[in-house]
Amino acid sequence: MSQAYDYDLFVIGGGSGGVRGARRAAILGKRVAIAEEYRFGGTCVIRGCVPKKLLVYASQFPESFEDAAAYGWTVGETSFDWPTLIANKDREIARLESIYQTNLAKAGVELFPTRAVLEGPHEIRLVDHGRRVTAETILVAVGGRASRHPSLPGAEHCITSNEAFHLKEMPRSVVILGGGYIAVEFANIFLGLGAKVTLVYRGKEILQGFDDDLRHELHQAMAQKGMEIRCEEAIERVTRGDGGRLAAHLLGGDVIEADQVMLAIGRQANTENLGCEAAGIALDERGAVKVDDYSRTSVPHIFAVGDVTHRVQLTPVAIHEAMCFVETAFRDNPTKPDFETIPTAVFSQPEIGAVGLTEAAAAKLLPEVEVYRARFRPMRQTLTARSEPMVMKLVVDGASRRVVGAHVLGPDAGEMGQLLGIAVKARLTKEDFDRTMAVHPTAAEELVTMYEPSYRLRNGARVEG
Amino acid sequence: MSQAYDYDLFVIGGGSGGVRGARRAAILGKRVAIAEEYRFGGTCVIRGCVPKKLLVYASQFPESFEDAAAYGWTVGETSFDWPTLIANKDREIARLESIYQTNLAKAGVELFPTRAVLEGPHEIRLVDHGRRVTAETILVAVGGRASRHPSLPGAEHCITSNEAFHLKEMPRSVVILGGGYIAVEFANIFLGLGAKVTLVYRGKEILQGFDDDLRHELHQAMAQKGMEIRCEEAIERVTRGDGGRLAAHLLGGDVIEADQVMLAIGRQANTENLGCEAAGIALDERGAVKVDDYSRTSVPHIFAVGDVTHRVQLTPVAIHEAMCFVETAFRDNPTKPDFETIPTAVFSQPEIGAVGLTEAAAAKLLPEVEVYRARFRPMRQTLTARSEPMVMKLVVDGASRRVVGAHVLGPDAGEMGQLLGIAVKARLTKEDFDRTMAVHPTAAEELVTMYEPSYRLRNGARVEG
Repeated sequence: MSQAYDYDLFVIGGGSGGVRGARRAAILGKRVAIAEEYRFGGTCVIRGCVPKKLLVYASQFPESFEDAAAYGWTVGETSFDWPTLIANKDREIARLESIYQTNLAKAGVELFPTRAVLEGPHEIRLVDHGRRVTAETILVAVGGRASRHPSLPGAEHCITSNEAFHLKEMPRSVVILGGGYIAVEFANIFLGLGAKVTLVYRGKEILQGFDDDLRHELHQAMAQKGMEIRCEEAIERVTRGDGGRLAAHLLGGDVIEADQVMLAIGRQANTENLGCEAAGIALDERGAVKVDDYSRTSVPHIFAVGDVTHRVQLTPVAIHEAMCFVETAFRDNPTKPDFETIPTAVFSQPEIGAVGLTEAAAAKLLPEVEVYRARFRPMRQTLTARSEPMVMKLVVDGASRRVVGAHVLGPDAGEMGQLLGIAVKARLTKEDFDRTMAVHPTAAEELVTMYEPSYRLRNGARVEG
Repeated sequence: MSQAYDYDLFVIGGGSGGVRGARRAAILGKRVAIAEEYRFGGTCVIRGCVPKKLLVYASQFPESFEDAAAYGWTVGETSFDWPTLIANKDREIARLESIYQTNLAKAGVELFPTRAVLEGPHEIRLVDHGRRVTAETILVAVGGRASRHPSLPGAEHCITSNEAFHLKEMPRSVVILGGGYIAVEFANIFLGLGAKVTLVYRGKEILQGFDDDLRHELHQAMAQKGMEIRCEEAIERVTRGDGGRLAAHLLGGDVIEADQVMLAIGRQANTENLGCEAAGIALDERGAVKVDDYSRTSVPHIFAVGDVTHRVQLTPVAIHEAMCFVETAFRDNPTKPDFETIPTAVFSQPEIGAVGLTEAAAAKLLPEVEVYRARFRPMRQTLTARSEPMVMKLVVDGASRRVVGAHVLGPDAGEMGQLLGIAVKARLTKEDFDRTMAVHPTAAEELVTMYEPSYRLRNGARVEG
């Protein structure tokens, strides 16, 4: 590539997408630099997927202690120390961050631990270094952040998931505003760790976009564990009392006191003061970078991947977009990211793993739908007092016989969702599932032994038989 | 069907295969009876899969108690009471047994809680009832049992898995003879519950038939936890000392003292005194009932399914054979059981889930093989002192690109094996796996993100690159 520029590729943002794009391009022999203003690893590693899942693990121990009795174990008094958890979690995150940095360096990427802003279509200012560099191609991968809801009176008293990972002490009571997966996951974490948790969500039911059946079942399971869930409700204002305790004033008039109020109402792209205007990059009405099917911005040599583009805000999707970007920009192989049939998990308790169409979506799209549904108590609970249902559901296109959706609620649902993803993405039929021998005793065997539909839908309406 | 016989179908044996066959036939309107001499549910429910897995769960708690510290939990002293576990397990087994009976009765099957023996091609004697009945079609589903190794001096001092489920007290030390999945699972159960465990196996490595790589990794993991594993060794005799303790005298000269010596050296068909000769049913040299591709014995109207036929000794296979039998015998739809690509699990600790060809088998069958292998520490362990590897391996046919084998060692491997089973059975390619978006953070995502082969085999030999 031309030596007229300092770099063949400059990546702004050291999260999942940026790091993968930088490494892949460097491995191809490109001169690559990457700037990160905070910590390499991005939302996923630093304040998202990874620390979240470690907190989920921590919050699951009390159930294990309780269940042990039925299996013959007597467990002495247990206690929990939040600072220990946070310190150990932080050590692991630091370890992962350093692996990210090492891998970038090994691939030959130059690392700039600074904020970087665009000053023109090829010009990047390294803010802390007081330096300008140029690059032939630029990848914007600055990610997003939790919305802070500035219009909410008292929003300044609230935390988001960012702060939740670094609280000095464990809150004994938490109000969480939101009904998406982040709200639900944190509500379960705090509940598991022993807090009183109230989830407030304006929508009719938590986890919009997931299968209604699983949404209801998860709602019930969380409520049964003692979580207070207030759907079709909102927080009007948050006030801080004399003792430092917060009060969430709900629209309906109730006031809920809590140690912390957490906002999980969505995420916004980190495009402020990035210099998009100077570079000529167009943003959408929500401030996200507009891209075409190849992750190209309105400036042909500037690409954007990951959460900053507000497509599908998931780590593996950002990584996939980055890999497609490298094919497109550096290997003469224009490649569109494939967003069809993305499996996902919610690390709620119980967990959700899902891929493909929900029953409701299939009912709208397809004239004939078969639903296969199993609901049972996971085997591990059978000796215990616990009774959380496991639900498995296959949505089948009656015409093609394809399994167009698979939905699991229960232990290990995330792992199952991943592997069901292979089958659904490959357009396998119900007969392909049926032909598979069961593995006994597992929970997943239910997915290959549901021989008769639980019910059928015709033109969107349930039919008998 | 003809009223010349008391029943259209008489099933001998109330295990997985027999119960399924009886119910299915009864639902079709056939006059069906079933005899069981011990308890309905068979090996799987009464003294196999189900109680085994409950014991596995019990044995996993100590690791959970240990790991909790890293997640901020302090756990008081813990203790274990074997009789509590056994009593709770027995209660659950009784519950399941009663469900089996209820479901049979609901389907209209007549239940005879007695041993039944054949007295002719259509005649069955109900031993405890002192009665004879006749049936047009007979299904032999009497299963198998653990071999007691009568040629071993002192075998009478030993237990098998049968007795292991009902020991009065938890053995502090156990010697287990065998290297198959039953031996390995029980070795892990007793180890987890705190016993000193020695596994003695005549073969070179435990778990013959599974992928060598996983066999070695599991061996190492079990040894690291403190299990003594003696491969290429055998027990010459077992003696009982004055204090009641047993001594296992090994061929190599070592003597290992233990509270219990358990034999897990294989299983044999329950065909003694069944009246096979009177009915004209041919047995093979090991005493198993010989059947054709349709589970038909040498007598055209007598069929046999499950462990008594010594085909694949797994619950889901027996059930599948029974369902095929009903198609063949009662629905005018001759159906061969499909034994190709059966996924299986070993509930060792860590667990194994596998389907399809091992690397070694693929190397023999296929000229070009690609092996994709990932070995990592499961995320849950990252904060803890525990360091058991998780191993994932895909074996790919270089010519067709088909994933011909998938092998997992680690947490939830059984669940993964089940769902990988769908993909491998459906002959999906490596590209089908690659096209699937990852679900992060899961362990299973490794299975869809292994982009480059770890190594290749050509004509059975490893090649560089």
